[in-house]
Amino acid sequence: MPEEDRLEQVPAEITVDEYQRRLEQVQRQMDGERLDVLLITSEDNYQYLTGFNSPTWQNLTRPRYCIVPNTGDPVLIVPSSQTVIAARTSWVKDVRSWVSPCPADDGLSLVVTALKDYLGNFDRVGAELGPESRLTMPVGDFLEIKQALEPSETVDCDWMLRQIRMIKSSAEVAHIRHIAQLVSRAFEHLPCRLHAGQTETEACQQFQMDLLRMGAEKIVYLVGTSGFGGYQSINLRPTETILENGTVLIIDTGCSYKGYYCDLDREFAIGKPTDQMRLAYEIVWSATQAGIDAVRPGQRTSDIWRAQAASVSSQTGNKGNPFELTSTGRMGHGLGLRMCEPPSISRDDETVLEPGMVLTIEPGITFMGVGRDGPENKVLVHEENVVVTADGCDLLTRRAPPEMPVIESIG
Amino acid sequence: MPEEDRLEQVPAEITVDEYQRRLEQVQRQMDGERLDVLLITSEDNYQYLTGFNSPTWQNLTRPRYCIVPNTGDPVLIVPSSQTVIAARTSWVKDVRSWVSPCPADDGLSLVVTALKDYLGNFDRVGAELGPESRLTMPVGDFLEIKQALEPSETVDCDWMLRQIRMIKSSAEVAHIRHIAQLVSRAFEHLPCRLHAGQTETEACQQFQMDLLRMGAEKIVYLVGTSGFGGYQSINLRPTETILENGTVLIIDTGCSYKGYYCDLDREFAIGKPTDQMRLAYEIVWSATQAGIDAVRPGQRTSDIWRAQAASVSSQTGNKGNPFELTSTGRMGHGLGLRMCEPPSISRDDETVLEPGMVLTIEPGITFMGVGRDGPENKVLVHEENVVVTADGCDLLTRRAPPEMPVIESIG
Repeated sequence: MPEEDRLEQVPAEITVDEYQRRLEQVQRQMDGERLDVLLITSEDNYQYLTGFNSPTWQNLTRPRYCIVPNTGDPVLIVPSSQTVIAARTSWVKDVRSWVSPCPADDGLSLVVTALKDYLGNFDRVGAELGPESRLTMPVGDFLEIKQALEPSETVDCDWMLRQIRMIKSSAEVAHIRHIAQLVSRAFEHLPCRLHAGQTETEACQQFQMDLLRMGAEKIVYLVGTSGFGGYQSINLRPTETILENGTVLIIDTGCSYKGYYCDLDREFAIGKPTDQMRLAYEIVWSATQAGIDAVRPGQRTSDIWRAQAASVSSQTGNKGNPFELTSTGRMGHGLGLRMCEPPSISRDDETVLEPGMVLTIEPGITFMGVGRDGPENKVLVHEENVVVTADGCDLLTRRAPPEMPVIESIG
Repeated sequence: MPEEDRLEQVPAEITVDEYQRRLEQVQRQMDGERLDVLLITSEDNYQYLTGFNSPTWQNLTRPRYCIVPNTGDPVLIVPSSQTVIAARTSWVKDVRSWVSPCPADDGLSLVVTALKDYLGNFDRVGAELGPESRLTMPVGDFLEIKQALEPSETVDCDWMLRQIRMIKSSAEVAHIRHIAQLVSRAFEHLPCRLHAGQTETEACQQFQMDLLRMGAEKIVYLVGTSGFGGYQSINLRPTETILENGTVLIIDTGCSYKGYYCDLDREFAIGKPTDQMRLAYEIVWSATQAGIDAVRPGQRTSDIWRAQAASVSSQTGNKGNPFELTSTGRMGHGLGLRMCEPPSISRDDETVLEPGMVLTIEPGITFMGVGRDGPENKVLVHEENVVVTADGCDLLTRRAPPEMPVIESIG
């Protein structure tokens, strides 16, 4: 399919059939793990299993729960103010509710009752406890539930869900591709939209307005920072610093479409880039390409890390060269209903790639740059998104240009 | 100070002195609660105590920790990629780091060591476990830390922090006022920016672009929905539904300025509102006013709830009247570094108001409305933000107009 057509396609919605296939897969795994029932509280696992797509996760007063039995359909336990959301977005029919806030019992007795209904076979409950998980309820309440279910055991189920979620369906990939293409195009327009003399804040506001105008549903994460001769970190909020000639601007954003994320960055030179800036950009661009070229089924995430590392070292092996491989713990990660999902593309992660996995390819370098007041530690990071296919990978973003794009002065 | 001048003022930054006063207050309370040390993980408590203002909370792979001893300065334990953020935004000097992700030990041994350094006097650690809290780390890791510290006891400290945080300093109030005024003004412009025939999505995109153009730092929460003769819930994401004459649009948003939130909504009639829509709006506008008028030190949150409830029932007492008080559990809440903080303005919440508390006043009604296809359950909710003063309260938002604003057709 030509790339242009793909962009025009609005992705088909996730069907009830697909939700039910996900549920069956989880339930098969529950048997293997000897789990009677799962207690699900986090936004992404909740949406993955039930379709429940709510803007209310920001409100910590009113929690919501999903109970997944070993056989049969899940149960949603939500505050009464969220039953309309459940009816409009979830395929699950059994929706129980209470009037929240109710400090004496904010849904807990409903949760305990529902969990007990399904306990018995293995006497084991799964909950979101493992690495990179977040239990999205007060932990004091969780410990009360755990105690109320004893002697049944409560164990982690998050890793199991993340393993299943690593392989995306074609509908999921279409969602990620849709938002990744939109954000890529907004980045492509940016040199014509900005000019030297603006502040970091103004640049990021312009970019966000462009994203909204182009139809981005939600700009969840956006960092933007700059520095003379290069920037010092990618994780910084924009400030009133002025984009003067000689500086480099990076913007990194995670936008979502119906819950599915893209995660990419682009850098821009303000005025003509110096030789060092151009070289740094080219080194990381090539390392990104080496990472993309290495992605295929059967490879391990550590292989993708090594392909990127080898590319950097092949370009920086010369004596007196100031460029070094990034010292952050990884050069890419999984992507889906969360902006950062397992696996990590790191030296030690041995996840075997399979078709349907969606990854960011995100190499970086550190170097001693030429700041305004003398030598200064700098970093440079690129990021693209790919999906593993039967024999390689497809790019979901539109590839960053091989030379650093330039933002000109006015007039 | 005239309101116009206030708007122009950029709020003064929170000073290191203020952070240190907050710390002293927390440490005094720790003595009272017999706590040696606190383990802080959530974005809002973290920022409240340390100033650490990071965009990285979206990334669940790399957690960060703050250790607050009973005396002396806190310790930040952050991934190496976040030390630059700590240096730029936090006053805390003792910053320890590790290269993350590191699945074998993602900061845990650093955390346990730091906590043990301060244990001994009471053998009690405080953690974020209580009502409305979120422990912002994997719970499996937390349980490991808890076990490693035994026989020391781990208890909730979140309620203590929330009690302290309920009373805002003038600098905090200035932050909330700044963003509340900005969002209020954007809402005031909206009737001139929208027109009948747009979709809910288009209307919300226009509003978000206006917010950005006016300088909103972060649009964290935004819901927008509509319905013929009124809407059915306020917690819905915008859809492709067209804003035709006869519908009511509500937009509710939580935007933040340097971490501090406003939380307000406004409704708009598309074309001339019907008598029922006008009456519903007036009932809730008056109930909001009754709530605002009731806010003064010494009153309880339940009094504010009752003032709003009494206003609604005084206007809806007539026979055959379709309007009823909302059945959601509260009509307002605290506001600060989180969009929804304690206290709740509910029938049973007995928090005594003190100067410096910032509250939303948020009454609502339900009624049988006239939908396109016949009778339909509708709701109507207003929301303003106030700060309790020595003898009453100050409005932080700009008051919604007493009559429903109208969005006209084009031409």
